[in-house]
Amino acid sequence: MATVTLLSDDALAPEAAAIFDDIRATRGTDYVNNFWRALAHDPDQLKALWQRLKQVMGPGALDPLTKEMIYVAVSAANACEYCSHSHTASARAKGMSDAMYAELLQVVGMASQTNALASALQVPVDDVFKA
Amino acid sequence: MATVTLLSDDALAPEAAAIFDDIRATRGTDYVNNFWRALAHDPDQLKALWQRLKQVMGPGALDPLTKEMIYVAVSAANACEYCSHSHTASARAKGMSDAMYAELLQVVGMASQTNALASALQVPVDDVFKA
Amino acid sequence: MATVTLLSDDALAPEAAAIFDDIRATRGTDYVNNFWRALAHDPDQLKALWQRLKQVMGPGALDPLTKEMIYVAVSAANACEYCSHSHTASARAKGMSDAMYAELLQVVGMASQTNALASALQVPVDDVFKA
Amino acid sequence: MATVTLLSDDALAPEAAAIFDDIRATRGTDYVNNFWRALAHDPDQLKALWQRLKQVMGPGALDPLTKEMIYVAVSAANACEYCSHSHTASARAKGMSDAMYAELLQVVGMASQTNALASALQVPVDDVFKA
Amino acid sequence: MATVTLLSDDALAPEAAAIFDDIRATRGTDYVNNFWRALAHDPDQLKALWQRLKQVMGPGALDPLTKEMIYVAVSAANACEYCSHSHTASARAKGMSDAMYAELLQVVGMASQTNALASALQVPVDDVFKA
Amino acid sequence: MATVTLLSDDALAPEAAAIFDDIRATRGTDYVNNFWRALAHDPDQLKALWQRLKQVMGPGALDPLTKEMIYVAVSAANACEYCSHSHTASARAKGMSDAMYAELLQVVGMASQTNALASALQVPVDDVFKA
Repeated sequence: MATVTLLSDDALAPEAAAIFDDIRATRGTDYVNNFWRALAHDPDQLKALWQRLKQVMGPGALDPLTKEMIYVAVSAANACEYCSHSHTASARAKGMSDAMYAELLQVVGMASQTNALASALQVPVDDVFKA
Repeated sequence: MATVTLLSDDALAPEAAAIFDDIRATRGTDYVNNFWRALAHDPDQLKALWQRLKQVMGPGALDPLTKEMIYVAVSAANACEYCSHSHTASARAKGMSDAMYAELLQVVGMASQTNALASALQVPVDDVFKA
Repeated sequence: MATVTLLSDDALAPEAAAIFDDIRATRGTDYVNNFWRALAHDPDQLKALWQRLKQVMGPGALDPLTKEMIYVAVSAANACEYCSHSHTASARAKGMSDAMYAELLQVVGMASQTNALASALQVPVDDVFKA
Repeated sequence: MATVTLLSDDALAPEAAAIFDDIRATRGTDYVNNFWRALAHDPDQLKALWQRLKQVMGPGALDPLTKEMIYVAVSAANACEYCSHSHTASARAKGMSDAMYAELLQVVGMASQTNALASALQVPVDDVFKA
Repeated sequence: MATVTLLSDDALAPEAAAIFDDIRATRGTDYVNNFWRALAHDPDQLKALWQRLKQVMGPGALDPLTKEMIYVAVSAANACEYCSHSHTASARAKGMSDAMYAELLQVVGMASQTNALASALQVPVDDVFKA
Repeated sequence: MATVTLLSDDALAPEAAAIFDDIRATRGTDYVNNFWRALAHDPDQLKALWQRLKQVMGPGALDPLTKEMIYVAVSAANACEYCSHSHTASARAKGMSDAMYAELLQVVGMASQTNALASALQVPVDDVFKA
């Protein structure tokens, strides 16, 4: 149903299989979701994306849950069906409560509304906002 | 430079002036930014938006800074020039450090990349992600 | 400031000049706006776009003002700076009052908000809505 | 299939049930569509959105059908599957004929095309278009 | 499942049937895909779109395969499910190899990432890039 | 004018300075454009993006010019002002002629139009297009 087949484990090139091993070890589950099975046709891209994602989404100045909620927000703004589902599930797995999700959605909705209004009105940026 | 004039204080209808008073009182500053001056042509919309925004962006299950960073992320995804500037400034005013901003941008970039890939590939949603 | 030069009248190929003549005659003004001056590097595209636009935006089952307001709405949703300005000006020239513009903006804002929410939540389409 | 369950009537909090009553009374039908059933997990958001939507989409300087068609246009531009279906159905219920829908689509297509071209070319806004 | 019925051959108006004949002759196949069957409710729009598409996508300064890959890239950026599927299939039919598709996806992902970052950061355009 | 200052060479951290050296060596010019000067506040992100970009945009199954034109197309679809300017300039530097640019724009416009129509109509994907 994707534009490529979803590769099963026994169809993986060795470099892709090594990345799947790391996905499983990092997440502590045997399940590898469809996104990676679609990307696995290009082991270099699979590796580059997974390794950067692992680094970006880990703990830092922002905690992993906050990062995951930001990911959900961007995915909604980009109307990405797959990502809205997968990252909402990830955010829940990282501790997003129903109340947190409700507030996340409120902000996404409000931002989308005022983004459209500012773009429609072409409001000039205040000097005080400029770096 | 907007599609409407930016209303100065002495050009406001009374209902709009009352909202400007509340913006000033809530934020503890006399400065009212251009977005509200453009919206003030429609006092009902000004009131509805401001009152909902105040409620949504206040403390709750998520803290105001987290909400503001989510707002920045959505604004970037929607390519909104005004909102990217104004909400980045707001996030900084609420305590976003350079390190937090850097990580926010990393997540926005990574999400935009994988959103585009998932949309290009039309990856079917895994059953495990469905509510 | 565009990615191409804006062609002045004396720099036009004959096929482009003929389209400029038709733009002027159709609109009843000597002014030809920058969009067409950028497109004029490709006379075939200029001709195809202008002729289709003239046909699409003329009177039909929808009146030209309604069409122009729909154009403004799409341009805001697509965050198109140029189009938001030019089509808001066109809508005003065709009779859009301040009150009509205010309501147009209200709908654009509300739609953008619920679009983002429906995409975030991935709400399944009700059977009753399917053709 | 959404990221949340769709709440049935007997699972609603009292505040959400009251909004469902108003949706039914306003629309003159017992049917409450999925969008509201997904939103009902957050009764405050449900109430805020429904009440504002009811006000915004009612008669004013623009008639309800024109507003609904603008809603459809924004939903298409935002690639919102749910909203394209639900608001096209609403527009039809408010009197949109096949001919009107055809012209609406023509404008949406033309606007999307010229939006992309103006963004690609980064055409500078004509002084005459500025408010 | 679309917002309109998909017209079968025996439901077409004569002007639409003539366009379907041209689609079949041009493509050398009897199969006419769903997009055209949805558009066929508006024979004028069907004709205008098909004839322009045929011209635009034909050989010129860019070869048809390069054009088709650009089409896929735009469709991914616009999160268009139908177009991602149909134009990826077309690109393959025109000779896009697995390696070419992998690189196309890499560019789409990288561009989406840097687009979001440039929009978030509101980087001012370098003078050297201006025409 | 960006949301961050654009770092001059003498304000760079050593890791960022090393990346600037590589940008200059790779491109054969002393000029480093604003995007990298904005990103340089986060040397890790600067390094990750530049190194991946260099790899992705190099020669492969697709030539660098084709890749650059795909980049321009995505940037237009995402309404990214900076990227439309910078990647159009890059494409020209890599050999994009006026005729090639004109055809690129034609495809971007046509794709944006049909993307919007397919999203508005929610055309179901033909079985023949599925992988």
